[in-house]
Order: sequence, then C-alpha cells, then structure tokens
Amino acid sequence: MIRIGLAGYGNLGKGVEQAIKKCADMSLEAVFTRRDPSSLELASDTPAVSMSEISKWQDKIDVLILCGGSATDLPEQGPELASMFNTVDSFDTHARIPEYFESVNYKALEGDHLSLISCGWDPGLFSLSRVLFNSILPDGQDYTFWGKGVSQGHSDAIRRIPGVLDARQYTIPSEDAIKAASSKDRPQLTTREKHRRECYVAVEDGADKTLIEKTIVDMPNYFADYDTTVNFISLEELKSEHGGLPHGGFVIRNGETSENTTQVAQLSLKLDSNPEFTASVLTAYARAIYRMSQQGRRGAVTVFDIPVGLLSPMSAADLRKDYL
Amino acid sequence: MIRIGLAGYGNLGKGVEQAIKKCADMSLEAVFTRRDPSSLELASDTPAVSMSEISKWQDKIDVLILCGGSATDLPEQGPELASMFNTVDSFDTHARIPEYFESVNYKALEGDHLSLISCGWDPGLFSLSRVLFNSILPDGQDYTFWGKGVSQGHSDAIRRIPGVLDARQYTIPSEDAIKAASSKDRPQLTTREKHRRECYVAVEDGADKTLIEKTIVDMPNYFADYDTTVNFISLEELKSEHGGLPHGGFVIRNGETSENTTQVAQLSLKLDSNPEFTASVLTAYARAIYRMSQQGRRGAVTVFDIPVGLLSPMSAADLRKDYL
Repeated sequence: MIRIGLAGYGNLGKGVEQAIKKCADMSLEAVFTRRDPSSLELASDTPAVSMSEISKWQDKIDVLILCGGSATDLPEQGPELASMFNTVDSFDTHARIPEYFESVNYKALEGDHLSLISCGWDPGLFSLSRVLFNSILPDGQDYTFWGKGVSQGHSDAIRRIPGVLDARQYTIPSEDAIKAASSKDRPQLTTREKHRRECYVAVEDGADKTLIEKTIVDMPNYFADYDTTVNFISLEELKSEHGGLPHGGFVIRNGETSENTTQVAQLSLKLDSNPEFTASVLTAYARAIYRMSQQGRRGAVTVFDIPVGLLSPMSAADLRKDYL
Repeated sequence: MIRIGLAGYGNLGKGVEQAIKKCADMSLEAVFTRRDPSSLELASDTPAVSMSEISKWQDKIDVLILCGGSATDLPEQGPELASMFNTVDSFDTHARIPEYFESVNYKALEGDHLSLISCGWDPGLFSLSRVLFNSILPDGQDYTFWGKGVSQGHSDAIRRIPGVLDARQYTIPSEDAIKAASSKDRPQLTTREKHRRECYVAVEDGADKTLIEKTIVDMPNYFADYDTTVNFISLEELKSEHGGLPHGGFVIRNGETSENTTQVAQLSLKLDSNPEFTASVLTAYARAIYRMSQQGRRGAVTVFDIPVGLLSPMSAADLRKDYL
C-alpha cells in the first residue's frame, strides 16, 4: 500500500479523500490541518492531525498531497514540506512556476525527497497535451478553451456589487470558435470570440436590476471584453440549481505535416466537479511519484518528466498486453 | 543534430521524410531499402542505400525509424535492427505485442541499444490516453471510435468482388454514439451502433450493381455487422475525390469520482493523412529515444515508459516556463 497524507481539507482535499477510495493500492494515513483537528468532519476514519505535528509523520507517509491554495499557502508550504516528504501539489500561478520550481527543487534535494509541482488539469493534463501535440505537430497553432465551468473569481466579482446576495458565473466556450479552431484556416481568435460569460445572480428585494446588470457587463478585465448575459434568479434557485463546480475545456493543436495536409489533435474534459477531478489527477500522479522516488529520483519534477505508465496500478507487462 | 535513418520508403517512410523537415534538430542521413536504391525517388537529397549495407551505418545513425509493415517486415526486422541501432517502430498487431516486445528487448539489450515499439496513434497516442485516463478515473468505462477514415483492408475486400475496378471504404463513427459515450448513462454500445461504413465503388461497364451492392453489405466480418452504404462512382471521380488517406478517432473515458459525479476525458484526432501523422509521431518519439539512450536507457520500451517532455526540442526549463 502507498501511504498518502493530505495537507489541507478544503474542496480539493475532500476530493483526494474520495479518489483514494477508488485506488486499491493506496491508503489515506492522515489529514493535516491548520484548523482545530477535532473540528474536521472527515468522510473516512482517517485521523485529523494538527499541521504543527506533521514533522513527526515522516516515516508514516510515502507521498503527501498538498491541497492548499496557490496564492498564499503553497509558496510557503511547498518548499517546507518538500524537505520532509515526497509531495504532489497543484500550484497554478503560471507566471511564478519557474521560481516555485526552483525553491521546491532546492528543498526536496536538501531533504532527499521527490516533489511534483503544478499538477492537475490546467496546469497538468492541458500542459501535457500541449507539449505532446506541439512536439508531434511543430508547424501549427494552439487553441485553449475553458468551460463550461464556474469561475470563482468572476462569481466573487459579482458578489461585491451592492445589492447582490449571491452569484454564480459560468465561462462558456463558443461552439463556432471550437469548430473554427479545427478548420484548415487556423484563424486567430479573439478573447470575445472564444468564450462568453453567463451569470446567475440573486439580489436583495428592491435592488436596481438594470444598474446591477450594467455594472456586471461593463466591468473591466472581468466582463467588458466578453458577451455577457445576466439572469436574475432567486437565492433558493441559485443554491439548488447552481451549487456544483463543473468545469472542463479543450486543448486543440491544428497543424500541417505537409503543404495543405491538416492534422488536428484535441484533448477535451467535461467535468461535473472540478475539485474532484483535479484531486483524481493528483492521486494518480502520487502513485508515479512514489514509484519514481523508489527508483531514486530526487528534487522537483513536473508532469513533463513522468512516464504515463507509472500512473497506472497495472504492471508494465500488463499495460503492454491490455492497453497498447 | 540527431541523425535519423529510415528503413523502408512507403507511405510511412515518405511521411517521416516530411516530418524531419519540420524539425530543426534532426537530419535524415540515409534511407535503407530492399529495392534497387537507384529506383527510389526521394523528396530530399538523402542517399538511398541498399538494406544489405545497413550494418556499415551503425556509427552514422542515432535513431533508425522502421517503416516496414507489421505482418511480415517488422517481426523479422525489428529484433535484427534493434541489435545494431536505437530504433522506433509502429508494430501494430495488437495480439502479438508482448512476444514482439520480448524479442526486440532481448536483441536491443544484446546490442546495447534502446528500441521503442508500437508507436504511432493506435497503438501509440490512443494507448497513452487510455492509460492516462484510466489511471485518473479508475471507476469508469472506455470507448474508442475510429474515423472518419479509410480502411485499407475493407477497400481491398471490395476490390476482390468480380466487376469492381477500384473501391474506397470509409469507417465513420456515429455522432449519436459519441454523444452517448459521454453521457451519464455510460451505455454499452454495439459494433453496429458505434460505426457505419461508407463505400465508393467504380465498376466495369455492364456490371450488375445490385449484385455487387448486395455482395458488399452482406460480406461477413467486413460489412454484415454494420450499416453500410454503397455509392457507385466513376473511376475518375474515385481517384480525384477519394485519393487521400484521412483517418482519426476518439478515445473516451467516462468515469465517476463520487456517486453521480461524472467526469469525461477525451482525445480526438482528425487527420488529413494517416501515414503523415503516424510518421510525425514516430519522429517526435525518435527524439525522446535519442535522449533516453544518451541517459543510458537500454532494451525495449513503449510510449508508456517515455516522459512527454523528452519529445519536445525545448529544454525542461523552457517547457516549465512556457507550457506548464
């Protein structure tokens, strides 16, 4: 059994707890939290442990999956925990990945451990597909579409408007743009052409809906560059119909292998739950990190460095026989 | 520069010759053939060399790409050439892959070389996606669809019918079945439900079209289990409108991460030229094989064993910065 630890118990951590239940070769040994451990309601009989005790668990955990956020948690936790454990995280602040990689790599080498950074689906599977497709089709054009999915940041931006009780924003890729991305023309597509934004908003009694709608659709950076539709619904309907966290998207590489010979490769994801899927990716990669650490690999790595066969519980011989 | 050699110069070999032109870090050093080398009309100024001379090229080739067929060429050439060169091949007789792997592995180890077997898109990218998706979504259902694409075997079967001059058969995946494969129901789909077959047939003057059509649609193994449509067209139209070798397909994994939470991952390919795309896959993987051989890896490997980052001409640091 591969002994997994969890650092953080939000949506992502809960997803990992679920994912491990589907993996016969893994056990969840402990959930580490900065909250009062007794306040955690776990969905398994795993012990909840104070983060301050984590260093005592180094001999009991094969891979620690970090489920904190990229803004403030991971920049600090990532390197620190990499010095004590093999780790997997989903650090997703794209611009800061090189510097994060260096600091985790340094600490992991110092502590004689192996750490996978920036795993999940974007960054993660989308990144992997872009590199795979670009390597095969060097002469071509990349397209990425996101959605249909909930954007937490955009939902929050709506919630801050006076008179708004709650809101949910969906990013929706344009079917026409997806089609165009696979066409022989390889068009340049603008932000507005690729996605539209759909908002579901519950407001206070007597709120000025016209003003709220205008405030949303004109909001710079968030909505002004998109076709945005605003639907006012009741708070009850918002909670019952829009309580999930669906997401997904498309990575498309449209290339030419010779004059006028077009080849299109595409990865698509359609996810009922963004955090549960991300968690399942982290869990599968934790298996690979365990194996690579057993083989002697140390330092920081990314999804680009990991042979896909190591993600599977099956042996290499069985994979060749049944999946090649 | 990575020095590439080609063994065989059919459609696949010609595709590799094209693919190498798109790769600034690779050069095509020689094309080896069992035909009279002077009879080959190459699309580059590469020397054509008799296969009987190949052993003299061991110091001049970093990776040899084998472009022979799986039925008779590769079972013999694969192990033999693996003893002399690092190799990449597209062996695709699924049932014989384990035994082929063993014989190539033995000879590659004996000759101190590294060989990638069964590369391309199926086996190859489709296999890779199945393992990736299954590892992330262990609780789910796999679906594979092929096409729209030309099936050489089915086209040949039609050509053998008396009165037929030439024919082209397209395998076409059902849109409804693809949609169903991504639905919450995860239906079992029969062969007939998943694909239909479309035939374009040129016949001799005065041939009995009704009989030919009946012979096609009732043909056991090839057509009887499918909805098949037969279109009679002129030989000229067949050559002008159906001369390409398009193909493609879909690998879909439809899984659950928790009760009633459905997650769907899909790889799709839409290819104007099956041999050129396959060739581009082999060429990108040849880069990885060169690097892994430099790192000391020996024996036989599959796409499951190769980190995707090694396929790219970019450095690991640049990939992290620009693609993660």
